[in-house]
Amino acid sequence: MENEKKPKVGIVGCGGRGYGVIRDVLIGLIPREISIAAVCDKYPDRASAAADLIGAADGAERPAEYTDYKELCDIVHPDALFVYSAWESHFDIAIYAMKKGIPVGFEVGGAYSIEKLWELCRTYEETGTPCMMLENCCYGECELMTLRMVREGVFGDIVHCSGGYHHDLRYEITGGIENRHYRLRNYVGRNCENYPTHELGPIAKILDINNGNRMLTLTSMASCSKGASAYAAKNMPKSIVARQNFAQGDVITTVIKCAAGQTITLTLDTTLPRTYTRAFTVRGTCGGYFGETDSIYIDDGRYHDFEFCGEKLWGNAAGYCDRYTHPIWQNYDPTGGHGGMDYLVTEAFLESVRNGSRPPIDVYDSASWAAVSVLSEQSISLGGMPVPIPDFTNGAWLCRDDIADAPDSCYGLDNKKIAKKYRKQ
Amino acid sequence: MENEKKPKVGIVGCGGRGYGVIRDVLIGLIPREISIAAVCDKYPDRASAAADLIGAADGAERPAEYTDYKELCDIVHPDALFVYSAWESHFDIAIYAMKKGIPVGFEVGGAYSIEKLWELCRTYEETGTPCMMLENCCYGECELMTLRMVREGVFGDIVHCSGGYHHDLRYEITGGIENRHYRLRNYVGRNCENYPTHELGPIAKILDINNGNRMLTLTSMASCSKGASAYAAKNMPKSIVARQNFAQGDVITTVIKCAAGQTITLTLDTTLPRTYTRAFTVRGTCGGYFGETDSIYIDDGRYHDFEFCGEKLWGNAAGYCDRYTHPIWQNYDPTGGHGGMDYLVTEAFLESVRNGSRPPIDVYDSASWAAVSVLSEQSISLGGMPVPIPDFTNGAWLCRDDIADAPDSCYGLDNKKIAKKYRKQ
Repeated sequence: MENEKKPKVGIVGCGGRGYGVIRDVLIGLIPREISIAAVCDKYPDRASAAADLIGAADGAERPAEYTDYKELCDIVHPDALFVYSAWESHFDIAIYAMKKGIPVGFEVGGAYSIEKLWELCRTYEETGTPCMMLENCCYGECELMTLRMVREGVFGDIVHCSGGYHHDLRYEITGGIENRHYRLRNYVGRNCENYPTHELGPIAKILDINNGNRMLTLTSMASCSKGASAYAAKNMPKSIVARQNFAQGDVITTVIKCAAGQTITLTLDTTLPRTYTRAFTVRGTCGGYFGETDSIYIDDGRYHDFEFCGEKLWGNAAGYCDRYTHPIWQNYDPTGGHGGMDYLVTEAFLESVRNGSRPPIDVYDSASWAAVSVLSEQSISLGGMPVPIPDFTNGAWLCRDDIADAPDSCYGLDNKKIAKKYRKQ
Repeated sequence: MENEKKPKVGIVGCGGRGYGVIRDVLIGLIPREISIAAVCDKYPDRASAAADLIGAADGAERPAEYTDYKELCDIVHPDALFVYSAWESHFDIAIYAMKKGIPVGFEVGGAYSIEKLWELCRTYEETGTPCMMLENCCYGECELMTLRMVREGVFGDIVHCSGGYHHDLRYEITGGIENRHYRLRNYVGRNCENYPTHELGPIAKILDINNGNRMLTLTSMASCSKGASAYAAKNMPKSIVARQNFAQGDVITTVIKCAAGQTITLTLDTTLPRTYTRAFTVRGTCGGYFGETDSIYIDDGRYHDFEFCGEKLWGNAAGYCDRYTHPIWQNYDPTGGHGGMDYLVTEAFLESVRNGSRPPIDVYDSASWAAVSVLSEQSISLGGMPVPIPDFTNGAWLCRDDIADAPDSCYGLDNKKIAKKYRKQ
């Protein structure tokens, strides 16, 4: 690495997500944390817009522009690569970068074949170059508070977790011709849990997946597909999209069984009208966190039964923050102009780049979480058949320790540094 | 029938549920609506307690007591039989009564074999004697308001429904030796969605199951079983129950696929600490009802996306009551000392008995809903394999009309009569 303290980074993918992270997170790290040497997008206008944005930042130079990520890697050879491109491209880009010795952080998204994920793992094992799925929701405030409560035993033994990507994306999906968004082609062509990791990531960390536990099998079922078509017919009747058949079911329900006995239920729910929630839920023998109502229930050992039938705990989780907020969030103030979870996951990746340490979400986490998409596609197409989830660790999960469990690691972040940079006033 | 207007009824099962319904609903119908000629329980003390209760009611005579339901049927030959006994006994008792020409309403609960449900259907077809599962939640205020909104098209095409029996029953289950409750033996010996109908009943009516639609297949997965054991170890360490292995997983997730493309997700969640909810949820292309937060979202045709990310609609369903309360509940005041849903479902059954009409929850509804328990047991034991759901109508679902759909039928109830008897003041 040219500069131990200030990695020179490259960015692939400057569409909605990439541009947003550059604007909200990355340019804030210039010039003291990183320099941005190059940007890449298959659409030159997007790369130019991103280069404009970066070039205008304080202390920044205008980065080089590319339309081919291989050229970016070969010519610029950055110290780290951020990948915000379309879902389909994440793993090919990551594998290419790793082979060049470039640590790579890639956006969330599911996989299209299990073989590609094995290739990702093999490439890591052969090159030793770290890669990390940039799953920002692992750094969410409520997710981290719940993780802490689980680690402190507040909820007892954890037996079931659930979550959903409940997000009305009909506008984005049906606008995919104008906005060049990869979701459109995915919703037309595929039928699966296409976006599992916002919920599965935090849950997997809580359940020690790949670190003493693992996901064994899953089943997945899809509802019919009516939401996107109905939306397009109503809102863009003259568009070709209004006559488009969508393979993607409106609601996908996936159930995962873990080696230690827990079940995980995931719901994809993106083409029907509703408000947003990830419905992150963790249930144990002594209590649980219920994301849809942002509430916590802790068993007090007394008998309640119907006494609690009418009781609403909606929103009561706020009352637990003083006692249980995760150390990272005690020192972090997202209202100060930082990007919330996006900032933290970016910092965590850069921390591992600077230190050459194992990323808090490593190649095995990334592969096993991304595998859910293709396995759910298989299960749905087989009528809901259970399908096996590969053990990408090849048995190493039986004795691995999670970096996020180390008391002073704070999930891959240097908490003292976070405190210094982003302390609450 | 001896008296067209005043059926003479028998009651089988005088435990917690039976005694409760007698106390809260049935004695209120004496003497004008029914007479109670006989009660039966395998435990004589329970039958006596119920007979005492009934005998003390205004205008009532003390009923005869039996410990064998066959004797009750043969000797008393009531005009209608209510069955509140253990889950395992419902269908045998119903079949016996139907063969004697006695219309029978039985409490909710799942089945133990598919063959028994076929026998139930065959017996109905051979005898013409109606039977009805007394699924009170079909008459719930929010369930009926949602049904009305669906029928009026407010939510568009319905593509997914979900619900759960989220009820902390650890005290009742682990106390099964003292309270002689059938749940204990079921939780020790079985692992399945043992109580599907509180959610599935209202959902099935909304989705026209057995009346133009049907349930095709289901998959079911179970978490490990820790909740009941942990509770017993803590609260009754010296009891034999504390050393008991429970087969029943703490959380069971079942997904049902329907012929018309919808999915139904059911969750059984009865052995972990939490507050009560049935989480009844109905999702359509134009909006939905969300039971866990008692909220309604109706698409306004404008683009929201992240605008609604932080919005909480919790509890807003109350604002729709003026416009959409179901006619039954417009005329019904449960605060007047009636039993809420229990009263309505009892009235609906008695209405069909008096009129000789098809019950609003008929033998095919009862069989297909109860089938979910045994099919989920099979699916779980096969690692989550999809299993076919029998078509108990033998194809008749393609052209049956649901009695509950008739505009003036009000789900099997005579609404004018309800209004007269239970009108809100």
